[in-house]
Amino acid sequence: MIKKRYLMAPGPVAVAPQVLARMSEPIIHHRSPQFSAILTGVRSDLKYLYQTENDVIIFASSGTGGMEASVVNLLSPGDTAIVVRAGKFGERWTELCEAYGVTVVNIDVPWGEAVDPAEVQNALEAHPEAKAVFMQAHETSTGAKHPVREIGALVKDRAETALVVDAITALGVYELKTDEWGLDVVVTGSQKALALPPGLSLVSVSEKAWRLVEKSRLPKYYLSFAKERKAIGKETTAFTPAVSLIIGLAEVLKGIREAGLPAVFEHHRRLAEGTRAAVAALGLELFSKAPSEAVTVITAPAGINGQDVVKIMREKYGITIAGGQAQAKGKIFRISHMGHLSEWDMIIAISAVERALKELGHPVELGRGVAAAEAHFAR
Amino acid sequence: MIKKRYLMAPGPVAVAPQVLARMSEPIIHHRSPQFSAILTGVRSDLKYLYQTENDVIIFASSGTGGMEASVVNLLSPGDTAIVVRAGKFGERWTELCEAYGVTVVNIDVPWGEAVDPAEVQNALEAHPEAKAVFMQAHETSTGAKHPVREIGALVKDRAETALVVDAITALGVYELKTDEWGLDVVVTGSQKALALPPGLSLVSVSEKAWRLVEKSRLPKYYLSFAKERKAIGKETTAFTPAVSLIIGLAEVLKGIREAGLPAVFEHHRRLAEGTRAAVAALGLELFSKAPSEAVTVITAPAGINGQDVVKIMREKYGITIAGGQAQAKGKIFRISHMGHLSEWDMIIAISAVERALKELGHPVELGRGVAAAEAHFAR
Repeated sequence: MIKKRYLMAPGPVAVAPQVLARMSEPIIHHRSPQFSAILTGVRSDLKYLYQTENDVIIFASSGTGGMEASVVNLLSPGDTAIVVRAGKFGERWTELCEAYGVTVVNIDVPWGEAVDPAEVQNALEAHPEAKAVFMQAHETSTGAKHPVREIGALVKDRAETALVVDAITALGVYELKTDEWGLDVVVTGSQKALALPPGLSLVSVSEKAWRLVEKSRLPKYYLSFAKERKAIGKETTAFTPAVSLIIGLAEVLKGIREAGLPAVFEHHRRLAEGTRAAVAALGLELFSKAPSEAVTVITAPAGINGQDVVKIMREKYGITIAGGQAQAKGKIFRISHMGHLSEWDMIIAISAVERALKELGHPVELGRGVAAAEAHFAR
Repeated sequence: MIKKRYLMAPGPVAVAPQVLARMSEPIIHHRSPQFSAILTGVRSDLKYLYQTENDVIIFASSGTGGMEASVVNLLSPGDTAIVVRAGKFGERWTELCEAYGVTVVNIDVPWGEAVDPAEVQNALEAHPEAKAVFMQAHETSTGAKHPVREIGALVKDRAETALVVDAITALGVYELKTDEWGLDVVVTGSQKALALPPGLSLVSVSEKAWRLVEKSRLPKYYLSFAKERKAIGKETTAFTPAVSLIIGLAEVLKGIREAGLPAVFEHHRRLAEGTRAAVAALGLELFSKAPSEAVTVITAPAGINGQDVVKIMREKYGITIAGGQAQAKGKIFRISHMGHLSEWDMIIAISAVERALKELGHPVELGRGVAAAEAHFAR
């Protein structure tokens, strides 16, 4: 059973062997000068990644834990929050708020589309009492990018309203200026652009957000911002951190700092654009009206079930991409540009999509998508 | 700077190189048949470890996340809970309950002592409305074992009261019969007896506890038992799991199953008893009145600061043990028997304690503790 496997789903993603090797070194104690030194370096590098002067909190949890932390640390029972709901992860903001008795004003956007900032402006005017606007920078379930910068400008001057951005598949993928754009809370996870195994969530908190934290009365303990802020002052964490993942994070952030954010963004842009060139050459359509550099979401051609494309690629070719979720299930398939991937990996993915579609009876001229991608990458 | 390092603190602990190697294999997708198969195996092996027929839930979090989950999934605002508070981790139960508006009846026990079951019986009689008794199986901050079995017998027949046990440094260390002893919720973490890096908490839930879950009105989302139970039926997890840690867990549980729980318990007992023999031979005292197989907690001799012992061992000898926390800080030092350790590691720890105490001016006959441990291990 010799089968080389490729992971090209939008999280978990492929982790670089040298990072896996670093994480497999002997475990060190979390309350030790060695680990404190690593943590301090990580915290400094996270500020670079986030383009922020504020502290970035590290939780041992999935990304959803970071999202929940943003709700329970900023709000109080009965508060109003505006949620941009344009996919599965927008829905998660609503579910989280409702689980904690927060009144939600939903801005419903069709799956695949980006929110119109005017809609957020209308909601803010209709609900000046809203304590927070929750949104995605990039909605992973549809591949659509929301205009975070424009919405930041709308929320920036409202002293009592925080903008909370799930940037789990955006931060480190493309430009996101936390401080300059007025993004009060920005959440990410380890298993996306940071190309680490899952298990860490990261959350930046602005001064405006800290003022809301002081007034917040929703219950919390493990996911408390205040406890973590206190621990940052002592160069530690409030609870036992995921030591090996943080050591991997140190390694990844070192690489990002060395390459520089512009090069990191250019890398993702290149992979995405090459893939999109192939999609167009194959006569396929993008599902997203505002396609991202994180993932290319392709609409399954008429008569083809997107899940079958995923299944053939995984079972016959050893390549894991992702299908659609909830209402998009069967309608789409998704190829990640995040993780330890190169343009050659995109060539593999496109080649495999060509073969899978042909196998499923869709008319495909084999090599046509690959040729378009090659031409793009050769530029 | 060639320095071999040893980790002998009660968590995080040393991880076996073959487990680190397994975790450093390429990441696989969490929604894939490959990972589902691993997860199903892990869930079956966890039932063996827990000695339970009930489901064991896996969270990506520190152990504290598992403790918090036990509070928010079982209780409602204004409920009463009894807490056995005999150290830092007992205090954590109280803090967690109070953070969620639960009325706490504390049973305060001096640090280092085990709770008297009669005190729990009195509290249950005085507070028949208590929905839960929260306690530690083993209080890591003091090294004291509580009589979990006896308390299980007291709570077992109370249909409306659950016994919730933090077994983070007990499960997999010594005998703990979840079902037979009537332990309704048992929490553990990856970085103790399971000898993995930190980042996973594990929680078993009895049928009685599930009945409380149905009535619970405390808010939750990421740490929801119900969401995870639903996901277990689909051979997955509710949120992205910590893939690499679960793959490590599969490896460790396979080893535990092959060796058998009796051999695993005997291993810890042997390391603990050998260490205690050395402590006695050196004229030192155990801090705990009910010493455990998880960690040996030694009272610093008069005039010696326990933190200095820890510091010398770490900085000069490359050996990490733990000092005391909160009110025990400076008064004790703690040597773990959990993790990838052998009796030879205990010899190293004892030898280093001898040298550190001598260096700090305490009269020590070098080799005397080691000789006693050797004699014990040679039996």
